[in-house]
Amino acid sequence: MNIDFSYVNPTRIHFGRTAMQHLDDELRRYGRNVLLVYGRNSIKQNGIYDTVIASLKATGKEVFELSGIKSNPSYSQVFAGARLVEDNHIDLILAVGGGSVIDCSKGIAAAAHCKGDAWQRYWMQGEEVEHPVVPIGTILTMTGTASEMNAGSVITNEEAKIKQGRTFPLETFSPRFSILNPEFTYSVPRYQMVSGIFDIFSHLMEQYFGGDDDCVSDYLLEGDMLALISAARAAVANPHDYEARSNIMWCATMALNKILAVSKTQDWMVHQIEHQLGAYTDCAHGVGLAIVSVPYYRHIYRYGLPRFVRYAKNVWHVDPAGKSDEQVAQEGIECLNHFIAELGIPQSLREVGATEEMLPLIAQSCNKMGGYHVPSTDEVLQILRECF
Amino acid sequence: MNIDFSYVNPTRIHFGRTAMQHLDDELRRYGRNVLLVYGRNSIKQNGIYDTVIASLKATGKEVFELSGIKSNPSYSQVFAGARLVEDNHIDLILAVGGGSVIDCSKGIAAAAHCKGDAWQRYWMQGEEVEHPVVPIGTILTMTGTASEMNAGSVITNEEAKIKQGRTFPLETFSPRFSILNPEFTYSVPRYQMVSGIFDIFSHLMEQYFGGDDDCVSDYLLEGDMLALISAARAAVANPHDYEARSNIMWCATMALNKILAVSKTQDWMVHQIEHQLGAYTDCAHGVGLAIVSVPYYRHIYRYGLPRFVRYAKNVWHVDPAGKSDEQVAQEGIECLNHFIAELGIPQSLREVGATEEMLPLIAQSCNKMGGYHVPSTDEVLQILRECF
Repeated sequence: MNIDFSYVNPTRIHFGRTAMQHLDDELRRYGRNVLLVYGRNSIKQNGIYDTVIASLKATGKEVFELSGIKSNPSYSQVFAGARLVEDNHIDLILAVGGGSVIDCSKGIAAAAHCKGDAWQRYWMQGEEVEHPVVPIGTILTMTGTASEMNAGSVITNEEAKIKQGRTFPLETFSPRFSILNPEFTYSVPRYQMVSGIFDIFSHLMEQYFGGDDDCVSDYLLEGDMLALISAARAAVANPHDYEARSNIMWCATMALNKILAVSKTQDWMVHQIEHQLGAYTDCAHGVGLAIVSVPYYRHIYRYGLPRFVRYAKNVWHVDPAGKSDEQVAQEGIECLNHFIAELGIPQSLREVGATEEMLPLIAQSCNKMGGYHVPSTDEVLQILRECF
Repeated sequence: MNIDFSYVNPTRIHFGRTAMQHLDDELRRYGRNVLLVYGRNSIKQNGIYDTVIASLKATGKEVFELSGIKSNPSYSQVFAGARLVEDNHIDLILAVGGGSVIDCSKGIAAAAHCKGDAWQRYWMQGEEVEHPVVPIGTILTMTGTASEMNAGSVITNEEAKIKQGRTFPLETFSPRFSILNPEFTYSVPRYQMVSGIFDIFSHLMEQYFGGDDDCVSDYLLEGDMLALISAARAAVANPHDYEARSNIMWCATMALNKILAVSKTQDWMVHQIEHQLGAYTDCAHGVGLAIVSVPYYRHIYRYGLPRFVRYAKNVWHVDPAGKSDEQVAQEGIECLNHFIAELGIPQSLREVGATEEMLPLIAQSCNKMGGYHVPSTDEVLQILRECF
C-alpha cells in the first residue's frame, strides 16, 4: 500500500429481496420535497414506480418528476433537473434506475445552485463544488456502474459531442442510501445484462492494471473478478438465478465503490476510448468496453508484463508451465476474449453503429491516460482499427 | 448473496506515512474537551504522544487522559473512563493504540450516560444503546482487530472472569476517523506482530467458514487471506518492510470492517474459546487463536467439507489431483498449521500459562456457536485437550 490515501463512503446499502422495506424509514430522514428521477417506462411496467410513489405518499412527500433520462444522460437533462431542484426547494433527489439515472442525479445535485456554467466548471475544469449538495437516494434497477455507492457522474454534452466523467468527493456525492434488490434486475433485457456484466469486469481491470507492488487491493480485485466470472456464467445460463444475479449486483457495487482502489495506480484508458465511442454512437457502455478491451490489452501488455502474467494465472488459471511470460500474458488476454464471446457480446465497432470516419475523431477527442503506458492518438487509432 | 443485509460504515480512513497530517483537520470538527485514551509508555517512547499532544494544543483542546489500558481491557477501566466523560463533558474520545485501547474507548462511549449497570445491559444482555454516543477518533499503533473501522468492543469483567465481545451498530460506534500509519507499528515487538497477523487471519477464517452458497464475500475473503499470507511472510523476514507492514495493516482493516462479511453465514467459535482463554490467562489474543484453530478445524471440517476443500485449493493452492475431498481438506488445515509455525507462534496452551484445571472451566464458560456445527462443552474440552 505504497500510495497514501484517505477513504470514506457514507452510503447506507440495503441489499436483498426485502431491501425495499427500508424505503419509508430512509425517506423520513429528509424534508418534504422530493425530485423523482427515472428513465423511460420500464419502472411503470414492472410495478416499481407504483411502490415508490406509495412510499412517497405514505411519508408525506411532495413529489416532482424528471423522467426520460437517456442511457447516456445528457447535460441538457442535468440542466433541466437543476432548475427543478432550485425552483421547488428539493430536499432529496430519489433516483430510480441504473447508472445513467443516478449519474444524472449527481449531475443535477452539482449543477443546482451553481453560479456560472456547471458543465464547464465541474466536468471540463474539474472544479470543486462549494455549495451545499442536495442528498441523493437510489433504487437500483440495473447493475454495472456502482453509481449507487460512489460519486462518479458521466454526462454527455450532446452539442459539444463530449462524454465526460467526473468523480466528485465520496463524502458529499455518494448516495445517502441505496436500495439494491437483485430481482429488480430480472426485467433488464439480456443484451443490457451482459453489457452491465462487462462494465463491472472492465472497472476491475481498469483498477488492476497499474502499479508494480503487491498491494492488498490487487488481491481483492482478483477476488471480485473471480466472483464475477462465476456469477456471470450462471446468469447467462439462467437469468432468473437469484444467487447469480445477486452476486453480480454486489460484485458491481464492490467493483467501484472505490474501496478496492485504495493505494492503486490505475489505467482507465479503455473507458476513455469508450466514452468518446458513446458520444458518437448509441453503443451500450459495457458493449463498447468489451469491443475495445482485447485490442487495447494486446497493445499495452508488454509495458506491464508481470501484472499481465499475474492476471493470466490468478484470474484465468493459465498454467505457466513451459511458457514464456509473453505467452502466459497473451493467453490471459485470449481468455478474456473467450469470456466476451461466452457472454454473447458483439466484437466489432461496425456492429454497434460506428463508421470508419468516426475512428480518427474518437481517437483524437478521447483523453489519454494509462497504468503502464499512455497511448498516443495514433496508437488509439490503431487500436480502434483493430476492433472495427 | 442469499442473506439480505444493510451496511454502512462512516469511518474516514487516513492511511500511509502522511496520515498524521490530517489530525488537526479532524480535531477541528469536534468540541473542546477531548479524552485521550492510551496504554502504557510505548507512545511516549516513540514520540507519538508528543505529536498528538501538539496537535491537540494547536487546535485549542482541553485534554483529559486515561492511560494504562491493558491488553484485555477491563470493565473497571471502561467504568473509570465513563466517569471522566460525564464529569468533563467530553466531546471526542481520542484512542491512541491498538484494538484494546479502541475497544475500551467504545466501551467508555457506551457506558457514559448509561442508566443502570452498563456491563449487564450492553455486554451481557446485548441491549441497544439509546443515549447519544460520544464520537471516537483513533490513531492506530498496532494492527489486528480492525477496531479502527468497526463497532466491536471486547471487554473483560475481571471480577466475573468473563471476556465478552459486543458489536454495536457501525453507524454510531465506528470511529469517525482513524489514522493508520504503518510505520507506527514498527515498534511493536515481534511476538505482538505475529499475534496480530494471526488475529487478522482468524477473522477472515471465522467469516469464511459458514454457508454453502458461492457468495462474493467468500471470494473477497480469499483475496484478503492471500494478501495477508504474502505480506506476513515478507514482514517476518523483515519487520521494517514498509510494503509488507502496510499491506498487513490494510488487510486487518478490510478483514473486519464488515464489508467482507455481508450476506455471510459465519463461525466465530475459535474466538469464543479464545475469549475465555483470555479471561483465565494473559495469553496474547492472536496467539490464543492460533493455538486453538488447528485442533478446532480438524474437529469440525467434516461438517462443512466442500468449503474446507475450497479453502485448501484457493487459499493454500493444494493440488486435489488423486486425493479424496477429505484428504484435500485435511491438507489445507495442515498448511494452516505450517503457516502458524512459520510465524513462530507457540503451539500449545501450556506455553501460554494455561493449566489443566482451567480447561473444563474454559470449555464450560465459553459461548457455543459455529458456521457448520455448534460444538458441545465436551467437544470444546476435547479440542482444548488436543492443544494443551
